[in-house]
Amino acid sequence: MKKCIITIGRQCGSGGHTIGKTVAERLGIPFYDKKLVKVVAERSGLSAETVGWEGEYSSASSLFTSVSSRGYSAYNANQRDNMALPDQINAYQTELIKELAEKGSCVIVGRCADYILQGRKDCFHVFITGELPDRAVRVIEEHGITADTARSHVKGRDKKRSSYYKHITDQVWGMAANYDLCLNSSKLGIDRCVDLILGAVGVPEKVCVKGEKRYLD
Amino acid sequence: MKKCIITIGRQCGSGGHTIGKTVAERLGIPFYDKKLVKVVAERSGLSAETVGWEGEYSSASSLFTSVSSRGYSAYNANQRDNMALPDQINAYQTELIKELAEKGSCVIVGRCADYILQGRKDCFHVFITGELPDRAVRVIEEHGITADTARSHVKGRDKKRSSYYKHITDQVWGMAANYDLCLNSSKLGIDRCVDLILGAVGVPEKVCVKGEKRYLD
Repeated sequence: MKKCIITIGRQCGSGGHTIGKTVAERLGIPFYDKKLVKVVAERSGLSAETVGWEGEYSSASSLFTSVSSRGYSAYNANQRDNMALPDQINAYQTELIKELAEKGSCVIVGRCADYILQGRKDCFHVFITGELPDRAVRVIEEHGITADTARSHVKGRDKKRSSYYKHITDQVWGMAANYDLCLNSSKLGIDRCVDLILGAVGVPEKVCVKGEKRYLD
Repeated sequence: MKKCIITIGRQCGSGGHTIGKTVAERLGIPFYDKKLVKVVAERSGLSAETVGWEGEYSSASSLFTSVSSRGYSAYNANQRDNMALPDQINAYQTELIKELAEKGSCVIVGRCADYILQGRKDCFHVFITGELPDRAVRVIEEHGITADTARSHVKGRDKKRSSYYKHITDQVWGMAANYDLCLNSSKLGIDRCVDLILGAVGVPEKVCVKGEKRYLD
């Protein structure tokens, strides 16, 4: 298989993270999610918590508040100084995601990576959806959210992801036309989503055996 | 394979019609596109041309003009009498699509079938997208549109489909969350789109041989 960068956008609780991780394992290529947050935190001088949150879930108010006015003294200030915090984090994320894409095959979850890498022929953009009840169950099981707040948690996260995505890309989050493949994990199940992604990027079954790590050429 | 109704929404020129037809052929099940228009025309007393156009591409003005005020004397008037023309056509389309879904496995292209059949466990909803240049080429080749108007033709059709879909469903046309599987035919190619749909609905390769018609149980 040729070099392939797979980006994965996902509704909260859809299993997109698990699907991305499994695809990366099956292909034996790096998986970037929290690792990406960590590197951006190191480069920017911001905390991983701030990067993790503001780089994907920024509230409307922080979309218009610059880092300099927030007084992050350790922040590596340059031309990004007068940008709003999420825009500054996005500038670091954009730089890093482009670097990773140059480096080799990988799977990148979230962070508007589909938009950042749009137009590249070596990229494949995936979006994972799911039915609300299933997504609520998943955040209860995987993230310890209480049952009575699970649905509002899921909806709240999606609203924030959507507004951040709109702010950064000026596109509507979750539109099929922005992706190469969109999958409903409730209808298909996690395993079939993984198989369909591998089939879509052209990995022959003999090269990609379930549970076995293989390295791309 | 169990009973399965596959609905296919599609951007203009994305090859969704060809993909749907091929999926139906590979599964040996009926394919409904123009056949559906013909039956609605017979039942409603409207011309096939009117049903074909107003039942998917209605202009904003016709969305608010009732059939009775347009004087279709042959129209089988009942409680639908005071509806706008596209709504009346949609009422017939809805009735017919639900009948077809009850009857057995099939592929239905367009006509908001995904919305009409939403929530049914025996349905699988697909949306096909494509890059604008590829879609323009396809309408030039397949529909004899001139090269200089192909892009505006494609965009115009999509705008109309989108506004009709919004009017009927109160949902945004082309949102990944409304479908089980969305495919970019430019990235994947027509053949791989067909294979991915068959894989997604769980047809084992030995049952579904390319170019060979098989009948579901």
